[in-house]
Amino acid sequence: MLLDQINGPQDLKDLSLEELEKLSEEIRQFLIEKLSVTGGHLAPNLGVVELTLVLHYLFDSPKDKFLFDVGHQSYVHKILTGRKDRFDTLREYKGLCGFVKRSESEHDVWEAGHSSTSLSGAMGMALARDLKGEDNRVVAIIGDGALTGGMALEALNHIGDEKKNLIVVLNDNEMSIAPNVGAMHHYLSKIRTDRHYQKAKDELHHLLNKIPAIGGKLAKTAERFKDSLKYLLVSGILFEQFGFTYLGPVDGHDMEQMIDLFKQADSIPGPVLVHVITVKGKGYSPAEADSFKWHGITPYKIESGQVVKAVGPPMYTDVFGNTLIELAEKDARIVAVTPAMPGGSGLLKFAERYPNRMIDVGIAEQHAATMSAALAMEGMKPVYAVYSTFLQRAYDQVVHDICRQNANVVFAIDRAGFVGPDGETHQGVYDIAFLRHIPNLAIMMPKDENELRRMMKTAIDYNDGPIAVRYPRMSGLGVKMDEELLPLPIGKWETLREGDSAVILAMGPMIQVAEEAAELLKRDGLNVQIVNARFIKPLDEEMLLSFASEGKHILVIEESSELGGFGSAVMEFYSLRGIYGMPVRIMGVPDIFVEHGSIKEQRVEVGLTGERAAMEMKNMLPSRQKRATGQ
Amino acid sequence: MLLDQINGPQDLKDLSLEELEKLSEEIRQFLIEKLSVTGGHLAPNLGVVELTLVLHYLFDSPKDKFLFDVGHQSYVHKILTGRKDRFDTLREYKGLCGFVKRSESEHDVWEAGHSSTSLSGAMGMALARDLKGEDNRVVAIIGDGALTGGMALEALNHIGDEKKNLIVVLNDNEMSIAPNVGAMHHYLSKIRTDRHYQKAKDELHHLLNKIPAIGGKLAKTAERFKDSLKYLLVSGILFEQFGFTYLGPVDGHDMEQMIDLFKQADSIPGPVLVHVITVKGKGYSPAEADSFKWHGITPYKIESGQVVKAVGPPMYTDVFGNTLIELAEKDARIVAVTPAMPGGSGLLKFAERYPNRMIDVGIAEQHAATMSAALAMEGMKPVYAVYSTFLQRAYDQVVHDICRQNANVVFAIDRAGFVGPDGETHQGVYDIAFLRHIPNLAIMMPKDENELRRMMKTAIDYNDGPIAVRYPRMSGLGVKMDEELLPLPIGKWETLREGDSAVILAMGPMIQVAEEAAELLKRDGLNVQIVNARFIKPLDEEMLLSFASEGKHILVIEESSELGGFGSAVMEFYSLRGIYGMPVRIMGVPDIFVEHGSIKEQRVEVGLTGERAAMEMKNMLPSRQKRATGQ
Repeated sequence: MLLDQINGPQDLKDLSLEELEKLSEEIRQFLIEKLSVTGGHLAPNLGVVELTLVLHYLFDSPKDKFLFDVGHQSYVHKILTGRKDRFDTLREYKGLCGFVKRSESEHDVWEAGHSSTSLSGAMGMALARDLKGEDNRVVAIIGDGALTGGMALEALNHIGDEKKNLIVVLNDNEMSIAPNVGAMHHYLSKIRTDRHYQKAKDELHHLLNKIPAIGGKLAKTAERFKDSLKYLLVSGILFEQFGFTYLGPVDGHDMEQMIDLFKQADSIPGPVLVHVITVKGKGYSPAEADSFKWHGITPYKIESGQVVKAVGPPMYTDVFGNTLIELAEKDARIVAVTPAMPGGSGLLKFAERYPNRMIDVGIAEQHAATMSAALAMEGMKPVYAVYSTFLQRAYDQVVHDICRQNANVVFAIDRAGFVGPDGETHQGVYDIAFLRHIPNLAIMMPKDENELRRMMKTAIDYNDGPIAVRYPRMSGLGVKMDEELLPLPIGKWETLREGDSAVILAMGPMIQVAEEAAELLKRDGLNVQIVNARFIKPLDEEMLLSFASEGKHILVIEESSELGGFGSAVMEFYSLRGIYGMPVRIMGVPDIFVEHGSIKEQRVEVGLTGERAAMEMKNMLPSRQKRATGQ
Repeated sequence: MLLDQINGPQDLKDLSLEELEKLSEEIRQFLIEKLSVTGGHLAPNLGVVELTLVLHYLFDSPKDKFLFDVGHQSYVHKILTGRKDRFDTLREYKGLCGFVKRSESEHDVWEAGHSSTSLSGAMGMALARDLKGEDNRVVAIIGDGALTGGMALEALNHIGDEKKNLIVVLNDNEMSIAPNVGAMHHYLSKIRTDRHYQKAKDELHHLLNKIPAIGGKLAKTAERFKDSLKYLLVSGILFEQFGFTYLGPVDGHDMEQMIDLFKQADSIPGPVLVHVITVKGKGYSPAEADSFKWHGITPYKIESGQVVKAVGPPMYTDVFGNTLIELAEKDARIVAVTPAMPGGSGLLKFAERYPNRMIDVGIAEQHAATMSAALAMEGMKPVYAVYSTFLQRAYDQVVHDICRQNANVVFAIDRAGFVGPDGETHQGVYDIAFLRHIPNLAIMMPKDENELRRMMKTAIDYNDGPIAVRYPRMSGLGVKMDEELLPLPIGKWETLREGDSAVILAMGPMIQVAEEAAELLKRDGLNVQIVNARFIKPLDEEMLLSFASEGKHILVIEESSELGGFGSAVMEFYSLRGIYGMPVRIMGVPDIFVEHGSIKEQRVEVGLTGERAAMEMKNMLPSRQKRATGQ
């Protein structure tokens, strides 16, 4: 195996083209085999095997800086930079990260899990290089989907103006995570389809030869031929308008061609965009055939391409999608809005059923939010389905456009709480803290999949402003679903277990943690109340006042930032009501970024367990109360 | 006066072109006179007099929807829609809002104070219209500066793809608030400069006529003439690539031409971009001569154009700018980054002094943040100067790119707290709540301008991660400046006044409120401690523990959201340390959006006064403590 001899980029430098090609095949097999066991982002990485090889062959990492946008397509880069032996631990707790990770290697210089950051990163690195008088290369590798994210376009505009030396590799696979939408996509398609391009070129020759015969009618002729002319001239013209030198398109699986083109790119001063056409899933037929499904994949059988499926209750995501279809049937105002996540957000069936009411805006979280405000203000009921971590991108739009205008937008916030193997860039642990202080917004979290359905009904019926329902990246509990879909009273919590002098407030999956704690405390003779705090805002003020009058001790368990979270909301309530001295203990995600692993491991790491909850409760209760229970 | 007869858009419909022109002159005089007393956004509104007249003349508001981007250029719209009599109260408390305001008029359909939202709003309204089967027009009016904001580009990409009927008016005044930067700007310049455009056209004719003589060398010739051809063909091609029909450019002060062009735009299906060239400050020579200064202006003398200047201590903004120059002299790592606010952020002198270390990225808050992360990771010390309200745009970039990568970025957060006449879209009352829960970030606020200088020194010297200093939109206190610029110890507060059983924690201008309260309480025989809580994060844990051991009652006064704010930080600290029952009273900005007025009026509205603080403290203190002080 050639691959066995590759321990760093320097081991590539003396390889022949044939050897590079052999190596690319070996890497492909390596990926297919390793990921069949661990799962991971297979299709994107199969697409960039040759591209990554060429970059490391020609350029000099880590002196030269490679910035992988999103970073889930950095597996080949990891293989080539001394980490191939760690692939058995990919995306596991304390194992190899599924994204670029600076602590893993000096070759990892730019971390990301959110898209569209690499151009801004590249610009910063190029500016710093020039200010320091250094001369390294800066290369950003970005997909066609990520290119339409607002900040990538902001960066394009700035880079094109400043004329710094840097290379943007447009990894164009015609499909990001979902099929691309947007004008940029059509523009790239035009360039890609050589047939049109060639035809236009031929037509132009033909027509230009005819010009003398037309004589004075030149103006009109020019007008008529404008479209044809365009095809000749516009190949890359959009990028040239933005101030880039455009090179390509080039076949991203033809290393000889790519080597030539990147050498050329390297010799051109100023920003250069190299347009590389790749095939997602290249070399593994099941992934080539359905690169959408194979974008991020669970373990599979290599021969058949059969995916190992989990059995059990439906995912919250799917319950959301199915319920939305049901609600949309009876309410013509409902439209679904997604920033390029129709699959991940459970909206594929909705899109089939209501194609006109499904608005996929591409990777554009900000636009999706503000557009939703306008839809709501014109009487529609937009349901903006988005992962908690990606909603961070639209914070200002939530404040300034949706909540300030009090627009009836419904937020379906998926993957709230820990997300498992995607790790720290994707944790959904901040949405309570960044949403709770915004006026006019109501926020809910269901205890099970049936309550999710009721919350969706609640949200659709609610016409007093924006309302959010957040739910975890997990299966439901397998509970029986209500036959009739009834809304919940706004701001009302629910006692799940009666108790004496203490109460645990929890929501979502933390209710199980509360139950475990309550069982442990029961063994010690303490009966604690458990409340499903399903409204994070507004609070159940009546219940909070009753805790105060009953002199209860309160433990709050939340799988979200313990700074600015729900526990703080409880303490603020008492403070603002002039009720002082209430004992409230917060138990949440501490002030650190939590890395990849399973959700369970992440909970254990930060102490979101029944044992810990029981201990915190016991520590809080004064000895007299412990005595009062008979201890 | 013709203007006296205009009480709504319907009164324009029968006017002749001559009358419209007369009216435009009257409106211009009206604006110049009214704003000389109230101040306001003069130059932008003088630029759009004819444009606004034409839109209301041709189209039918409120059935047709006008979305003014940012909305500070809506004064003419307000004059034409029945609000001219309220201009004496412009931007005053309970007076006419300086931005679009739905509660003021049915003609105000889209509110904004932040830029680049109008295209997303227009798209939402067009989608809603079509889903409802209605047929109104949707018209977004956006400046050339706002067009490069990420979300506007996201929207452009989506609109161009969906082919909904809507009109985007590009109000191109060659200068947004500051001179525009970015490739888009150069692109627009090319279109604008007729001379080049004409020359290219002529050249093309000339060259095309020559073609037969060149014969087989056509290919090479085409290559050579490509640049010239481009000029002919690219007028608007960027927008056409994005899927728009492009019309223009047209002189935005020639109503006859504009009427023709907008009629044409109205007849074309799908999205149309109308490129209108306007002159900021048009018709008032001081404003035309310096449209930057006259963008937003305080009261002035009409004849001389002399601005009424406030006398007194320097603004925090200016202290920041001057101190940064001083620090940059000794530290070559320092670069200043601004999203199109070099003036507002006090960086004009810095830009003159260090042009290579001044990076103005245009309206692109996200890009500015992420680029700063990269600059820091490559050893520079980027100082990202931004208004509190606009930093909301970069929340995810602060979390995901800066803090998660623990990059040494310095945030200079201007206009923290109430901002006065700009009102609810600009209030800087959320940054504590949206920043405080992000790991790795330190946050400071100075009590006076000397402490601002020390905090800047602290921030520049700090190399353990990102650090922010927030300061108000106010003059300093006129304190004496230290001769030697010394850093502060991280996480250490300062006792400003000793006291007995109670303590007030405050920062920035709220320290004056605390002093007032302390004086009032002193009259009642209560001596309260006052602490300058200059580190919002990390907290002064030692001092907080001492309050607990001394059994002190704590009142927190903060000019920021009382949900998730600094007061919550104090309560969280005790809860997480297992210290229960501490009496803590929060006094901050309640859970509402606070409208325009003076900063003082805004403070009174929400109760951020010494009287209220004294009352809250007295209510909190148990009677035994009041007794203990001798009452």
